[in-house]
Amino acid sequence: METVTVELSERSYPIAIGAGVLDGLGERVRALRCGRRAAVVTNPAVASLYGASVVDSLESASFEPTLIEIPDGEEHKNLAWFGFLHDHMLQAGLDRESPVIALGGGVVGDLAGFSAATLLRGVPFVQVPTTLLAQVDSSVGGKTGVNHANGKNLIGTFYQPHLVWIDVHTLRSLPERQVRAGMAEVIKYAVILSPGLFERLEEGIECVMRLDDDVLVDVVRLCCELKAKVVSEDEREAGLRSILNFGHTVGHAVEVLTDYREYLHGEAIAIGMVFASRLSAAKGHCAGKTAARITALIRRAGLPTEIPDGLDGEVLAAAIKADKKVSSGKIKFVAVAEIGRTRFDHLTCEEIVADAGY
Amino acid sequence: METVTVELSERSYPIAIGAGVLDGLGERVRALRCGRRAAVVTNPAVASLYGASVVDSLESASFEPTLIEIPDGEEHKNLAWFGFLHDHMLQAGLDRESPVIALGGGVVGDLAGFSAATLLRGVPFVQVPTTLLAQVDSSVGGKTGVNHANGKNLIGTFYQPHLVWIDVHTLRSLPERQVRAGMAEVIKYAVILSPGLFERLEEGIECVMRLDDDVLVDVVRLCCELKAKVVSEDEREAGLRSILNFGHTVGHAVEVLTDYREYLHGEAIAIGMVFASRLSAAKGHCAGKTAARITALIRRAGLPTEIPDGLDGEVLAAAIKADKKVSSGKIKFVAVAEIGRTRFDHLTCEEIVADAGY
Repeated sequence: METVTVELSERSYPIAIGAGVLDGLGERVRALRCGRRAAVVTNPAVASLYGASVVDSLESASFEPTLIEIPDGEEHKNLAWFGFLHDHMLQAGLDRESPVIALGGGVVGDLAGFSAATLLRGVPFVQVPTTLLAQVDSSVGGKTGVNHANGKNLIGTFYQPHLVWIDVHTLRSLPERQVRAGMAEVIKYAVILSPGLFERLEEGIECVMRLDDDVLVDVVRLCCELKAKVVSEDEREAGLRSILNFGHTVGHAVEVLTDYREYLHGEAIAIGMVFASRLSAAKGHCAGKTAARITALIRRAGLPTEIPDGLDGEVLAAAIKADKKVSSGKIKFVAVAEIGRTRFDHLTCEEIVADAGY
Repeated sequence: METVTVELSERSYPIAIGAGVLDGLGERVRALRCGRRAAVVTNPAVASLYGASVVDSLESASFEPTLIEIPDGEEHKNLAWFGFLHDHMLQAGLDRESPVIALGGGVVGDLAGFSAATLLRGVPFVQVPTTLLAQVDSSVGGKTGVNHANGKNLIGTFYQPHLVWIDVHTLRSLPERQVRAGMAEVIKYAVILSPGLFERLEEGIECVMRLDDDVLVDVVRLCCELKAKVVSEDEREAGLRSILNFGHTVGHAVEVLTDYREYLHGEAIAIGMVFASRLSAAKGHCAGKTAARITALIRRAGLPTEIPDGLDGEVLAAAIKADKKVSSGKIKFVAVAEIGRTRFDHLTCEEIVADAGY
């Protein structure tokens, strides 16, 4: 297995990445020296695929796990399901030393993480991401939370996991649409931090999407390394870390305006990245050719690139304004300078929309 | 004004204590370099007494404050009101730099603090405690959260305020019962950490309860110093800090079993401290005389000392078991060794109840 460490002094933790390693989870969690009782939070689809093997692995390591299922979908990432998880965790008799294990994608990870962060003011937390998006992005870095009617992830906390356990084999059961959505975040890392990864994707993004073990372990590790470095330098998004929001300002707005139902998160981010790249070119931060390369790669991944029809500029600006990244009326917009390098531009929501030609 | 600092490296913050200083709040919050918009969370009774002067003070310092009222009482410290606060804060247009100010007692402080901790993953937070209990205890140390049907404060997080602003004049409007309840926590500090304070209370607890400015500022400062020192050494209750839970294991159970309606928090803690002192003597951790001195002082403060009639041992043990302080089936029980010194005893819930003679 490959291991990447997120360096955060006493909150440092390992990300372990391998192929066909789900069975080893229990033993590794045991090494965290937690209590006996454990909760595995997952959704029905993931439970039917991997629930039994995760529970078996935990039981073999002498845990007493309780499987708790929540429905899939961003629309369930809310306070009601947050309360549901607390109810079931307390009912299962979890105490301060009991690990909570998130088995699934971003919704499961964010909700289980927020619950683990707040149950008894914080219990051990383990991420076992089973989607590409969660493996390369949302399971690492400690962002947890729920959505609010006013916007995405508006309620939550920073809470670092104690371990991230990634089995790339779980991606084989993923619908192709989900793999594509995950590629959006892989492309994001390439655009903001790694010209090398960008060129590699330009050469053969199809290879990654074929899900060969070796290629996947390599790409997931690379993305985790990039993210780990950013998070180590700026855990709570006081500065640098906000580059990871590239494409997210408009992406979140698109998700909110379509009630989290029309687009997967990665698809909305793809639209947001194309928007951000074009805006970067329009504002003179990067060459038009750079924006065109980014757009072409996103299109090749089979991802959407355009704001949906019928979404007018004013509505979009209002949705952006509700985003938590607004400070004193302005957004710290992540612009592309060149492939692998970004620049911040402080813009009002109206400027963002108008300057992009909406 | 007197100032006590809670030393927590980059999360250090001042506790400012004075008499008649509420008007100075706005200017001091301005010095935190927050954004313009602000939320003041309070309850109707406190709002009618101090809401206007706090809002005026903030407006004079060019803030745009929104007053948000929540009903008083532990039974409202729940996820529903937590969501209510988020709704109103987002509606008021708060962003990441907007301060949330808790103006009230422990319920307001815990709920507003949990909301500030989780709004946009954390906004600046200021405690302006107006009860004795909140001034000497709950406003300092960063514990925030809500109750759960299974027990007190089971859901929450550690989130340090950026400033604690204490005006002892606000205690003059407090019903005498509330002052007594606050004295329970003052007595707690004396028992666990300060023989000097204990003797002073034995000499004239009535002087403190008369609420003279000088005496109050002095006693509140002393309690804050004691708490600040403990919190600085152990922010997240990994060890030492749990001595502050003296009397709380049984106190919380009594609150839960009476639906948070019969006793004020301090009254339940008074019962819990008497229980803990007697158990300490029964287990040989302290002399019987020590337990008797503690009980006598608590009685002199006009506080209850006995578990309510009709509460049987089995029910009590079950309620204790649901407390978040249980780890692997045992409670780290805070026993008295002598006035000013404690000792931990790891006991099962059944032992706690049986050995105390229930």
